[in-house]
Formats: sequence, structure tokens, C-alpha cells
Amino acid sequence: MFESAELGHKISKTRFKRESPALREALLDAQYDLKQAAAFPVVILINGVDGAGKGETVNLLNAWMDPRLIQTHSFGPPSEEERERPPMWRFWRTLPPKGRVGVLFGSWYTEPILRRVSGNGKQPELDKNISEILHFERMLVREGALLFKFWFHLSKAQQRSRLTELEKDPATRWRVTETDWEHYKHYDKFRRVSQHTLRETSVGDAPWIVVEGKDPEYRSLTVAKALLAGMRSRLDHEPADSVAALSETPPLLAPIDGVRVLDCLDLSQSISKDTYEKALEEWQGKLNLLTRQAKFKKKRSVVAVFEGNDAAGKGGSIRRITAALDARQYQVIPVAAPTEEERAQPYLWRFWRHVPRKGHFALFDRSWYGRVLVERVERFCSQADWMRAYSEINDFEEQLAESSVVVVKFWLSVSEDEQLKRFEERQKTSFKRFKITEDDWRNRKNWEAYSQAVHDMVERTSTEHAPWTLVEANDKNHARLKILRTLTEAIEASL
Amino acid sequence: MFESAELGHKISKTRFKRESPALREALLDAQYDLKQAAAFPVVILINGVDGAGKGETVNLLNAWMDPRLIQTHSFGPPSEEERERPPMWRFWRTLPPKGRVGVLFGSWYTEPILRRVSGNGKQPELDKNISEILHFERMLVREGALLFKFWFHLSKAQQRSRLTELEKDPATRWRVTETDWEHYKHYDKFRRVSQHTLRETSVGDAPWIVVEGKDPEYRSLTVAKALLAGMRSRLDHEPADSVAALSETPPLLAPIDGVRVLDCLDLSQSISKDTYEKALEEWQGKLNLLTRQAKFKKKRSVVAVFEGNDAAGKGGSIRRITAALDARQYQVIPVAAPTEEERAQPYLWRFWRHVPRKGHFALFDRSWYGRVLVERVERFCSQADWMRAYSEINDFEEQLAESSVVVVKFWLSVSEDEQLKRFEERQKTSFKRFKITEDDWRNRKNWEAYSQAVHDMVERTSTEHAPWTLVEANDKNHARLKILRTLTEAIEASL
Repeated sequence: MFESAELGHKISKTRFKRESPALREALLDAQYDLKQAAAFPVVILINGVDGAGKGETVNLLNAWMDPRLIQTHSFGPPSEEERERPPMWRFWRTLPPKGRVGVLFGSWYTEPILRRVSGNGKQPELDKNISEILHFERMLVREGALLFKFWFHLSKAQQRSRLTELEKDPATRWRVTETDWEHYKHYDKFRRVSQHTLRETSVGDAPWIVVEGKDPEYRSLTVAKALLAGMRSRLDHEPADSVAALSETPPLLAPIDGVRVLDCLDLSQSISKDTYEKALEEWQGKLNLLTRQAKFKKKRSVVAVFEGNDAAGKGGSIRRITAALDARQYQVIPVAAPTEEERAQPYLWRFWRHVPRKGHFALFDRSWYGRVLVERVERFCSQADWMRAYSEINDFEEQLAESSVVVVKFWLSVSEDEQLKRFEERQKTSFKRFKITEDDWRNRKNWEAYSQAVHDMVERTSTEHAPWTLVEANDKNHARLKILRTLTEAIEASL
Repeated sequence: MFESAELGHKISKTRFKRESPALREALLDAQYDLKQAAAFPVVILINGVDGAGKGETVNLLNAWMDPRLIQTHSFGPPSEEERERPPMWRFWRTLPPKGRVGVLFGSWYTEPILRRVSGNGKQPELDKNISEILHFERMLVREGALLFKFWFHLSKAQQRSRLTELEKDPATRWRVTETDWEHYKHYDKFRRVSQHTLRETSVGDAPWIVVEGKDPEYRSLTVAKALLAGMRSRLDHEPADSVAALSETPPLLAPIDGVRVLDCLDLSQSISKDTYEKALEEWQGKLNLLTRQAKFKKKRSVVAVFEGNDAAGKGGSIRRITAALDARQYQVIPVAAPTEEERAQPYLWRFWRHVPRKGHFALFDRSWYGRVLVERVERFCSQADWMRAYSEINDFEEQLAESSVVVVKFWLSVSEDEQLKRFEERQKTSFKRFKITEDDWRNRKNWEAYSQAVHDMVERTSTEHAPWTLVEANDKNHARLKILRTLTEAIEASL
């Protein structure tokens, strides 16, 4: 992997001076075309060996291209807010929108590699990280991102001589830190671990570009040319084809006996008002006590998803939960149309924004499942897009679960008759009329298609770490209690 | 202040039931009109005594209005990322955009009041906070926000009986926490401090609405009616008038001898290449060492503003600074046109977003001063808007300085001749052509107006905590060194 980056590549200053003006101009053109089309983001990862010109390359990109269209992010130790979320949260925060270039100095590769090199992480952990990275990058690419992964390399001898050289000159001595020498000591292991990681992640969607870091002219021209070629090729071709071609679309099989998960619910279950009120107070009390435990506040958080038929009672159920919580502890996120900033990002970006800190609840009134429900049924996105959403969603929820988030998901199910009754009631009551729109009546006509979509969704996304709870919601008391109890028990089990 | 909220206000359940449907409907209508017009945000502060129905009111608002158009935020102890910024940063983060309702449960009042009650803060500190709050709220209102400040009150006896009552019933015992009793012990002091704070901040722009919290029906109707009246009155009138009327527009006086700050610069200063290169490396080394000190990393951060004539060399100066920094330590923010999300917020919101954490630099390539420069000269905003910007900017920078941010501001000045030379050079060099646009030529024609704007800006915003440094930039070497030196010395002085 690194052999060809130890050959002592070099180009003359004359050639550099001759070639760079045209290259700079072409890069700027590409950047403006990118901005104009605003069809995809460019993500540039800068990784590699210390002293191999990573920082200089970041400066070069900002000097050669229009810095107003570049966002550079470097990653030091995570902040408290970052540590309280899944490791990928900090990277989601910094993804560039469509039409822009994002330079990530250090990236999702840095921590896994360094943990393995330092011995704090074992090989299976690294391999798990690698597999997560592969999923994440595939998602990015399918969302349209143009991903460049640069690895700047120096041989051991080159690194040593570079550090020594800098140290000799009093004027540049400050550029060498103790950490640099510390890393140098681990050069061999670093090289081995990096090589393994690079090999495993150098896939068709997003191959690594290894750059020999010694000669500044060689390094700069290599990076600039790779960027230009990649951007031009993407800008000059219809991206739709290539992206669509990437998405496999495995067939979804309907159950051959026609029985779907929702058909098996006993919607007639109900609970009397008295029993309900007593039990409600009891479960609310229990939930409240759990969320006040030190362990919960420091180590757990909750993501709860509320999906269901229109008028199934999502809002009312959510309020029965929030009534038991300290208001500083929760956030209700009603999922509406995405904003401009959100539309310029991968689909899941707007949900990552709301991943809660430790000790906090995020209650989603509708959620990322819109992709495989309304967007699928109403054909707001392509089949390839909603088909890949299942596994992307599973990845997302797995990351939540692995960073100690309790993930609970509710599907509130009402019968067609009960829904009609509620629709009519809403239309009669002036202050409830806002809850019912043309869309609701239209969705009702697609009852069959939605049922199939719900079936597939439950089938494909009810996982060990984030199972679906189907809620019989014809009786509101029953539904509210079941939800409250399920949530409370899930939290209890996690403590 | 609280007397009328201790009268035992009460309304019957019958009246509540009779009045609430129409009220709910009207509130929903107002909410949709608000969304439709998207002309201003509604900010609702929920404060007051424990047990007076604050949480219930938040739930009520979400139940009565369309929760998809409401954002509720509650404020517990600040997170690390929040503590590393000025105290107001967390509130800026949560302001609702135009067209939406933001409910802030706990607010910028909570901390100052509690600090004073607990004895951790003295009276002068509270009074300073009050004055800052007044400035902040005035800014909000002038930016168009409709601000409601609700204070929920209970008399001491009422609070006691409410807590006792809840504790008697095993089913509701969990609702009473130790903190509640702790607060009860300090009731008298809390009342005194709150009363003082409310009186001082109950001003024309944003008066307090004190609500007796005991009777739920009274409380709910009071809040709903106040909201409705406020929203309707604003929605049904041209807001432009009222907001404009609020903004005083003090006259700016040009110096009677015609001499302006920029006229006094000696633009002929220059530095030879050799001297420059040696000094550059030296100052970069010094800067680098300073930023690696533990004290800097833990307690200081830097906000640097780069303004100047077009082609004065802002980008090049910034890169001479970043070359000395660890890439994880800085963020360059090129200020371009605001995004949709940014346009829906007060003017300074998009800069608050970038306030750096401890140990970090935010380098602004153009800044909030656009308001009093290009927006003033090109009439992109009203005179009232840019006139009030001076003091709002001073408030902003003062908050930065007070939370240990080193604020440095550079105006890079070139002569008309030098600028022309650079423009022509840029047009000749293909890869520099992007740096020169129609706007630049247009701005050049307004040289005189810009000079006046710069003069006023320096005059009005060069403060003790955030002074302007005027940089003679005809010679790039001189300019870059002066900037690097000024920045380094400012950091040094702060440590």
C-alpha cells in the first residue's frame, strides 16, 4: 500500500511553476461549477503520518481554491457534548452541504487507528470500526457525496530526517512537538495498523489516494490533480446513473399467506378510565424515579420514535410521557419538511442533529422512518433510496444503542373504521381541525400500500438493539399505558 | 409586582370549558398566520416559582397549539461546550426562526436570579446582568421578535400547601423533589430578588406578565389570552412602523476638519523580504508557543476580525496566522451571504454560531461589521438597522471579552492607487481572477462613502475590550507582520 509512496517522488520547481497556474484556474472553475449545480458535496479527508504535509495541504487548498466555498474542520479530543453522543456524531455535525467542499483534517479513521496503535483497542474492535466506516462511507457516496481520502505518507527514515531538520533551525524548532517524537517511536506499528485499515477501506466507492509527503511540489500537484480529475468527472457526467447503479435493490417479499404483522393485532383491547388513571400515575412515578437516578443521568439517554396511522394518538401519548419528566430533560421533535440546510445534507443528517446528550430524551413525533413510509408510498424518493434506507437506519440505531442510548420505537395502529371516526370528530371540532388535512384523506386511500410499507419496515428494522413495539391504539387508554410501560421497562432494563 | 397575583384568582370549570374551544381555534389561526407571513418569531419565556404550573403551561401550549410549529427548550446546568462560551451563547442557539414559536422554559433570567438568591452573586453583579438582559431583549425586539415574558407566581402559603398536598398522595409524591423544599426555604429572598429583577426588566418593549399559578383554569386562560392578543395585534398591523419607531437614530457627525482616521495612516511603510521572512518565522514561533500553554488552552480563546478594502490582503494575512497554529485549534469563517436558516434569525445569530470554544481561534474573513459597511453603503438595510448595530456589536464583543475571549479586529487599508494596481494584476492572472468581481469595481466607485463608513465604525466600535487595529497594507510584508505581532501580543497580554 505504501511502497509506491516511498520511491522518493519529486518534481522540479520549474515544472511546478509551469503547471500550477492552469491547475489553479481549473480547480476554481470546478469549484464554481460545483457551487452552481449544488448537486453534491465534496468531502476531503486528510490523514497520514506526522510531518508528511497534511497541514500544508490544508493551507494549499485554502490558498488555491476559493476559501469561501471550503469548510475546514480539524478534530482534536472530543468535547463533552461530543463524548455524550455516538462517536460519529461529531462528523455528522461537520459534513459540508451540497455545492461545498469540506476538508476534514483528521477524520473517522484517526481514533480507531490511534487506539489500536496505542494498544488501547484490540484488533476485533478495529475491524468492527472498519466495517462501520465502510457502511458510513457507502451511505455518503449513495447520498451523492464525492469522497476523497488522502493519506500522506513518509518512510521511517524520511520522518526522522524531517523532524531532525526542523529541530536544528531555531526558527522552526517550535514546529516539532513531543507528540511528534512520541508518534515516531511507534512508527512501525502505526504503519502496520494504517496499512491494514487502508487496505480494508480502499473500496470502489471511495478508494484511498496515498501521497508521498516529502517533496512539497510533488505532493501539492498530486493532490490538486486528483481533486480536479475527480470533481470534473463527476461534474461532467449525469450523477444519477452512477449513484443509482450503486444501489442494489433486493426484492421485498410479501408473506405468501397474505398475513402481515399489523393483521395480528387485537385492536379491541381497552382499559377503563379508573384503571387507566391509577396506572398512569403509577407508571409516570416509576419513570420519573428512574430518570432521576445518577446512573441514568450520567450514562443513558433515550431516543423514542412515534410512528403510526394518522390520528392514532401519537401526540397524546408523547404528552403522557413528558408529563413525567423534568422539562430540562427532554425535547420533542415534530418531524416536518426539511429546511434548506437539511435538504443540502444526507437524509439522516437532520435526525443526527437531535441525538440527545446523556440523561436526556429525544421524542420524535414521526421520524427517519418517513423514508420507508410516506416517501416510499407517495414516491417522493426513488426505490433505490428507500431500499437502502433500511440498512442505513439499522446502522444509525445500532450506533445509538452502542453508545448507551435506549432506543424505543412505537407503531400506533388504529383500524380503518376507528380512523374514520376520529377524522370526522376532528373536522367537527373547530380547534382540532388543524390536525386533519388533505394529506390525511389521501393517505387513507392508500391504506393498503401503507400497510405493506409498515410490514416491510417492521420486518427489516425491528432489531435486537432497537425493536419495534406495535401498539393497539383503537383505545387510547390502552395505547398510552402500553407505551409508557414499554418505555419505562426498557429504561429499567438498561440500568 | 406580585400583589395582584396573590388575590386567589379563580375561574370556574364551566367557564373554562365554554371559553377554551374558541380560544384554541383562534390561537391555531394565529399560529398559521404567523407561519404564513414568516415575518417574525415568537419567543415565550416561562419563569417563576416552583409548583406554580410552569411545566403544565408548557404542556398546555403544546397541546393547544400545533406542536410542529413550536420549539420548546429547557435549560439545566450548562454543558461543557456552553460553559466555554459567553453565558448568552446557549440562548442564541435556541432562538426560534421567523414564523415559529419558541418556548424557553427557564431563560436568561434563571441563573442571575438563582445566583443572587443563593448568595453566590452580589447585587452589583445582578444589576449588571439586568442591564445586559435589557440590551439583549431590546435587540431581539428590534430584530422583530415578539417577546412574551410570563412569570408564574404563588404566595408562600400557596406554595407550601401545594407541595404538602402533592406529597400526601402516594401517587403524586414523586412530583415533589428535595430541591423544591430547598427552594421553598428561600422563598422570601427569592421573592425579593425576583421582584427587583422583574421591575427593572418590565419595560415597554417586553413587559412581564405575572400569572397567579394556583388555579389551573385561571392560569391557562390567562396565558392563552395574553398570547392570542399579543400575536393578533402584531399580525394585524404593519410591523415595520412600530419597529422603526423604536430605533432612535442619533446623527453621526463627520469630523469638522474633514480628517478621518484612515487619512492619518502612513501607507508608505514597508519591510524588505529578508527582514520579513526572519521576523515572520520568529513571530509565528512565538504565537505557536503561546497557544500551547495550558492556561491558553483552558481559559482563553481568540476571535479575530479581518476587514479591509477589497484586495487589501485579508486572506494572505489569515494564512500567515493559521500556518503557526495547530489545525485543530482554528476555524476560518469566510462570511458570505446568509443561509435560509440564518436569514430567519437576528442579524448576529450567524456569528454567535461560530464563537469558539476555549483554546480555539475563530478567524473571520469579513464579519458582523458588514452591517455598518457594505449594508450601510449599498443600502441593503435601513438606516435604523445599521445605526443600532454599533451598540449591538459592542454588546456582543463585550460579552466575548468578559468570557475571556481575546478579541482583535483589523482594518487593512490600501490606497486607491494600490488597489487599482492589484485589481488589474488579478485580472491578468487567470487563477486570481475569481478574486475580483463586478462588486469590487462598484465598491471602488463608492470609495468616499466607504471611507466615511469605516471612520464611523472605528469611532463607534473601537472599545477598550475590543479595539480596532488599523493596518497600513500597501506593503504586504508590513501588513502581515503587524497583524501577526498585534495578535500575538494581545494573546500574551491576556495570559
